[in-house]
Amino acid sequence: MAQEKEMSRVTEWRIRMADGSSEALAPEAGLACRAWLALKGLIMGLVLKVCNFFRKAWDLGQNEPKKVIHCLKVGMALTVVSLFYYMRPLYEGMGGNAMWAVMTVVVVFENTVGATICKSLNRICGTFVAGSLAIGIHWIVSQSGKEFEPFINGISVFLLASAVTFSRFIPSVKKRFDYGAMIFILTFSLVAVSGYRVDKLLEMANNRVYTIIIGTSLCIMITMIICPIWAGEELYMLITRNMDKLAYSLDGCVGEYFNESGSSSDGDKESDKKLLGYKCVLTSKATEEAMANFARWEPAHGRFNFRHPWKQYLKIGASMRACAYCIDALDGCVNSENEVPELIKKHMSNIALKVSSESSRVIKELAKTMKTMKKSSTIDYLVGEMNNAVLELQEDLKSLPTLFINPQPLQGADCPEKKNTGAVALMDIMPLVTLVSLLIEIAARIEGMVNAVEELAEMGEYKSVADEKNENQPVSKTNVPDEHKEEV
Amino acid sequence: MAQEKEMSRVTEWRIRMADGSSEALAPEAGLACRAWLALKGLIMGLVLKVCNFFRKAWDLGQNEPKKVIHCLKVGMALTVVSLFYYMRPLYEGMGGNAMWAVMTVVVVFENTVGATICKSLNRICGTFVAGSLAIGIHWIVSQSGKEFEPFINGISVFLLASAVTFSRFIPSVKKRFDYGAMIFILTFSLVAVSGYRVDKLLEMANNRVYTIIIGTSLCIMITMIICPIWAGEELYMLITRNMDKLAYSLDGCVGEYFNESGSSSDGDKESDKKLLGYKCVLTSKATEEAMANFARWEPAHGRFNFRHPWKQYLKIGASMRACAYCIDALDGCVNSENEVPELIKKHMSNIALKVSSESSRVIKELAKTMKTMKKSSTIDYLVGEMNNAVLELQEDLKSLPTLFINPQPLQGADCPEKKNTGAVALMDIMPLVTLVSLLIEIAARIEGMVNAVEELAEMGEYKSVADEKNENQPVSKTNVPDEHKEEV
Repeated sequence: MAQEKEMSRVTEWRIRMADGSSEALAPEAGLACRAWLALKGLIMGLVLKVCNFFRKAWDLGQNEPKKVIHCLKVGMALTVVSLFYYMRPLYEGMGGNAMWAVMTVVVVFENTVGATICKSLNRICGTFVAGSLAIGIHWIVSQSGKEFEPFINGISVFLLASAVTFSRFIPSVKKRFDYGAMIFILTFSLVAVSGYRVDKLLEMANNRVYTIIIGTSLCIMITMIICPIWAGEELYMLITRNMDKLAYSLDGCVGEYFNESGSSSDGDKESDKKLLGYKCVLTSKATEEAMANFARWEPAHGRFNFRHPWKQYLKIGASMRACAYCIDALDGCVNSENEVPELIKKHMSNIALKVSSESSRVIKELAKTMKTMKKSSTIDYLVGEMNNAVLELQEDLKSLPTLFINPQPLQGADCPEKKNTGAVALMDIMPLVTLVSLLIEIAARIEGMVNAVEELAEMGEYKSVADEKNENQPVSKTNVPDEHKEEV
Repeated sequence: MAQEKEMSRVTEWRIRMADGSSEALAPEAGLACRAWLALKGLIMGLVLKVCNFFRKAWDLGQNEPKKVIHCLKVGMALTVVSLFYYMRPLYEGMGGNAMWAVMTVVVVFENTVGATICKSLNRICGTFVAGSLAIGIHWIVSQSGKEFEPFINGISVFLLASAVTFSRFIPSVKKRFDYGAMIFILTFSLVAVSGYRVDKLLEMANNRVYTIIIGTSLCIMITMIICPIWAGEELYMLITRNMDKLAYSLDGCVGEYFNESGSSSDGDKESDKKLLGYKCVLTSKATEEAMANFARWEPAHGRFNFRHPWKQYLKIGASMRACAYCIDALDGCVNSENEVPELIKKHMSNIALKVSSESSRVIKELAKTMKTMKKSSTIDYLVGEMNNAVLELQEDLKSLPTLFINPQPLQGADCPEKKNTGAVALMDIMPLVTLVSLLIEIAARIEGMVNAVEELAEMGEYKSVADEKNENQPVSKTNVPDEHKEEV
């Protein structure tokens, strides 16, 4: 602090005046000078922030061109609906109905097809149901006399708004009809407040429903026709991508442990990043749930039919996370300071690497099953191989004491010495034992993944690779099963 | 299937007709009968579903009365704003401006104060900025001549809508201004479509901004005055509750392992549920993030000031999740089939239980620090104790081979036999070694939690318990630090 003050006293600041002369700023003018510096700093900081912001935006756009396309689609939909209404002066006053179409497009147009359809249907249904109900109540009120109107209106708004708001907390409603419930409250309140006569209301409601239908249809059409982003496909891609990451991480973590010096030479950061791929699995729960939620609204697209079992993807995701927890624990234990003696590490490395590579092969095969959407013919074999490797690993662990007591030429020494050797080894090989134990646990959890994927294959009626081959061959009569014969 | 058919043939169905006679349904009428059964099943299923739905809703309401209160608050706010506008026929046509107030209340009123304020400010700013910009462009258009109007409008809507939609993908915007961006697009498009003259527009914009401000103020007032639900407090409660759960789970899992028969007697399901408390930590990431996001909008409330470091809570949450991953792995490894010999298990149980209880004591102390919002005076001591226990555990593990070679009276046997004993033991004690290893890793990760909480205590300027005691005592002159003396 004291140093700084000295500095500012020594430095001389000059300001060039408008008439060309320059004036030295005496230390007394330090306030103005400091204020200028502060302002400059502020502006520079702001400029830097804005630059950063735009750079980030640019990166985002480059990495995910789908998002850019989505933005252009929104712009297009809005322009079309705006101009459509702008061009037709037949509508009363413009402000009225055009507004609802524009509003619908802005509010309903979402990133994925599923989300757009979900919001569209919610909006239409919410408006329709609430409108009908409100008009019905309005009619009753109009029959009962003017003086009760505010009370009945007030009470009905209060009760319905409270009840429907509460329903939005119920998970099953929240998942699917959250937006519809909001629109219900909105529409009902608007009609209750409007104070129009019933016939006027009917006309208005009519117009409004049409406008909303036009708006939502436009949105759904644009979102489905121009480079559609399907929530289902996004979910599917997320899961398969995460599976690959999981396989790579598992392989990588174990590999890195046994071969620390070798792998760090090429592209350190890149491989580190890949090793941490399992963290993506840990953090993708919320995205998976949102996507699965929207996917169920989507019509058949690509290789997915309408009732594709999207919920099963959540189960697969959960089983993957269970694996990822173990990998995270493994990553932690393995990086601890205890150094396992090289000899033992070497002895175990082959079989541990085999387990991890067999395990990740199973995961890769699962990813392949998902990618090709065909039942794998080799998965049982691979799981068997994985389990064999696990057994082998356990066997090898059993042989370990023999190893770590033998290698030193201790044959002549007596028992207490040997105990000591054993003692050192047990403590020292703890990370290794833990790694083995976690590998075994990971293998068990991978079987959970296998089950989840197999259930998906059942539910989604995946064909097995063998069936596919049969289909490609000409069908001989003898091959047709009994039920089919009757039809033939 | 065949059996079923037979059944339906044997059973005789009778229908009571309107005139009182009854008619046996011959097997030929099976179709009607089946249709009736199907319909009955459908209706019963529906009734059951509806009953279930209401039971769930009732449970939800009982468990979380806060949510019920929120619903009543929404109902109240809507009724107030509706009646307010309904009662004042001075407003032109009612439909116009009342609509915006009602809409604002419906859309803006959220569960927590933070979310309501966030949406309110976003709505006001979005409307204001977009309105100003749109009116500005409108004015330029009106100067340039009627024929260009549709083009300029269309292009400006397209460009702005695309750009702002894109900005909603940028994380920093998405977190805070997502709703504002949507409102911006909405308002801008509405004004562009409206086609009014500038002076009319200004009047309308004026009215609309006022209406929105009235609506949002009402929401903010109601949400803050009547039983407010603060996002910050919810986050704080979630984190402290999760900490307690974590401590209990850790203690419980290790305890259960060493004392399987003892604990299972009392309230099995209840304790099982508590043991799985760590799973709450695993799944609460999304909630934590949302709450932290809203909490930053909240004014000072309760024990939290305006700039309370809510972001730090996310760090604490992340460090807790890191612990929970290990507990999950531990839970898996520990429940594996390998049975550790009772003797060794007993030998290790004391110290392992000590580590787990010391660890969970640290976690509980952290939870206490958070609950009391005072720096703990004992946390360093407790962490020391935990680390000592870990060291002791490691020492004990070193002594283990002595133990498992000694107990059997094998002194007379020669070395190969001993090797064998050692070998069996190593394989068998693998779960135990893994448990120890994971306990050590958990202790290390708990230190991460300690750091995160200590950072929070620094940032939030928590007082230490000792300071507090000093404050409560009459301040003696000699105790006052130098700086204070000057002030005195």
